[in-house]
Amino acid sequence: LAVEAEIIQKIRSALGCNPQPSTPWLRLGLGDDAAILRPCPQEGTSKRNKPSGGREWVLSCDAFLEGVHFRPDVHGPRDVGYKALARATSDLAAMGARPRFFLLNLVLPGSRTGAWLDRFLLGLREASRKLEISLVGGDTSRLPHVAINIMVGGDVPAGHALTRSGARPGDLLFVRGTLGAAQLGLGLIQRRFARSPRQEKRWNSLLAAHLRPAIGLDFGRWLSGDKPSGPKIASAAIDTSDGLSTDLEHLCESSGVGARIWAGRLPLVRIPPELKTLRLDPLQLALHGGEDYQLLFTVPRGIASQIPRKYQGVSITHIGEITRGPGIELVQESGRRKKLTPQGWDPFRKT
Amino acid sequence: LAVEAEIIQKIRSALGCNPQPSTPWLRLGLGDDAAILRPCPQEGTSKRNKPSGGREWVLSCDAFLEGVHFRPDVHGPRDVGYKALARATSDLAAMGARPRFFLLNLVLPGSRTGAWLDRFLLGLREASRKLEISLVGGDTSRLPHVAINIMVGGDVPAGHALTRSGARPGDLLFVRGTLGAAQLGLGLIQRRFARSPRQEKRWNSLLAAHLRPAIGLDFGRWLSGDKPSGPKIASAAIDTSDGLSTDLEHLCESSGVGARIWAGRLPLVRIPPELKTLRLDPLQLALHGGEDYQLLFTVPRGIASQIPRKYQGVSITHIGEITRGPGIELVQESGRRKKLTPQGWDPFRKT
Repeated sequence: LAVEAEIIQKIRSALGCNPQPSTPWLRLGLGDDAAILRPCPQEGTSKRNKPSGGREWVLSCDAFLEGVHFRPDVHGPRDVGYKALARATSDLAAMGARPRFFLLNLVLPGSRTGAWLDRFLLGLREASRKLEISLVGGDTSRLPHVAINIMVGGDVPAGHALTRSGARPGDLLFVRGTLGAAQLGLGLIQRRFARSPRQEKRWNSLLAAHLRPAIGLDFGRWLSGDKPSGPKIASAAIDTSDGLSTDLEHLCESSGVGARIWAGRLPLVRIPPELKTLRLDPLQLALHGGEDYQLLFTVPRGIASQIPRKYQGVSITHIGEITRGPGIELVQESGRRKKLTPQGWDPFRKT
Repeated sequence: LAVEAEIIQKIRSALGCNPQPSTPWLRLGLGDDAAILRPCPQEGTSKRNKPSGGREWVLSCDAFLEGVHFRPDVHGPRDVGYKALARATSDLAAMGARPRFFLLNLVLPGSRTGAWLDRFLLGLREASRKLEISLVGGDTSRLPHVAINIMVGGDVPAGHALTRSGARPGDLLFVRGTLGAAQLGLGLIQRRFARSPRQEKRWNSLLAAHLRPAIGLDFGRWLSGDKPSGPKIASAAIDTSDGLSTDLEHLCESSGVGARIWAGRLPLVRIPPELKTLRLDPLQLALHGGEDYQLLFTVPRGIASQIPRKYQGVSITHIGEITRGPGIELVQESGRRKKLTPQGWDPFRKT
């Protein structure tokens, strides 16, 4: 089913990739939210860099495509600009890195080079200021549909980056924010529920979760021990872009572990009474809804008491624990246990 | 006419970009073939990095799009894979950098995830080995047309990167290789001249110029004083991706200078007698033909004698000189001078 994983596997074997390559300038290659570069190699000196007390670059890229990730009839250009950069930067938050720069590869139809582009750039600038990340390069091309490719870079104390692969059995599992809010926001927009300005105001926070995800950069840096400077707190992390069931599986697979989560502990989205007719199930939204761009992370049990219940006003929830695995177990409120299968976003799934 | 420049100007002013920003970790931002990062900043120490004798990262990105840069009916997947990476890496050659890593953002229709993808990856691997550049990350998405976004990174001795902005009046202007060969190769393919294997063999080198550009990485590193280690030789450089008339204008504009080139000195492509009926003009191909991915560079007059006539078997030709400008002057074989206007590739030109 998960054809995307097959494609990535094909790419990996064709290009002879090794997730922990022995090249001196690369700490981490394919298979995480981002790659990690060691300080630039010095020619002519020793093959391996001296261990530096410095910082390392973290790099990631993200595509935001019309017709796949957004639709021109429901997503305004300003929101598209904001979200394109926010979702790319989310990978840096998941690594515990501080954002620094991005490259923008912008594909536009000729008809969007006027007012649409102006408003797109306005949203992009808003995100760039909010996330403190600067444009340093890019490229433009012309095609009938908008495609936005963004490469982001940030830096982290050497050896402190949060990877997907560090979770160990016994670690506790946490999530930042509410799960499923972005999916609910998208549902409202798609069903044209949010058309009149008065309604939009009422559902502002639900729409914002979908249109303008609040990336947990400071919290990620706190987890990596970057801000304030200190020891690394999280053992592993990933951002929830494809839905909890899918992203947690990615984390477990990278770490070679399993997980147990409690349905009763999940920070569910509250569905307003007026929307009951939509028959949305908050638990399903939380388990499989995509694009929350929250942090899902693990912490060794011994230091888990350091995790606050809120950070900068956003809830941090203990939702489960890491097991030997394999697989992810969902403990329902009744106490019944069932296997949780990934049903989140996969662009290549056969439907 | 040059609408692409307008779009880039819009982006630049919206994002508040400064080509020479004062941020300590960035040496060069928007407006060149690539951005240059200084070694990672050290938190809590001085704001500015100590000048390091080390190396700097050079980053660039490139889009290679079906229907714009290649066509499925004339470009096989293996060549598409090779060229996608070669053209992206050409930006590193133009900076005099050594390639290290790339990120791949691959958009595919479901129908291309089988044999097409396998052959594409074969070509990508060939380029990756030839150019000594490793895949370290990426992303995949699904759309009806193939789109390949590649972000490349390399390193260069600190302060040695070749930029577009260093040309000074009096510098001599050189180009590596033959101009217009890639455009001629494309013409042969488009006109179905190169359909039978026997014909293909005869015109192999012409086709290769279009399908598998030979990137001058070693020569670029020689010009930057990286390999062998020495002083920087070129004062400015750019790769010829959009055609000489357009790329030379980019270089002149960045440097605030003009240029004079001699038509009689241009390394023209030789058109085989069998192709005379196509009425291709070698001079027009050389001036405006795109995708050669050769190096166009300037050298201070005093050290220009160091430039060899050939480097690794490829001709290096003195084609002109840098003037105070403004504008580019073409000296025809008759001695007549005329203004050369950019007629190279611009995706947004109104036609």
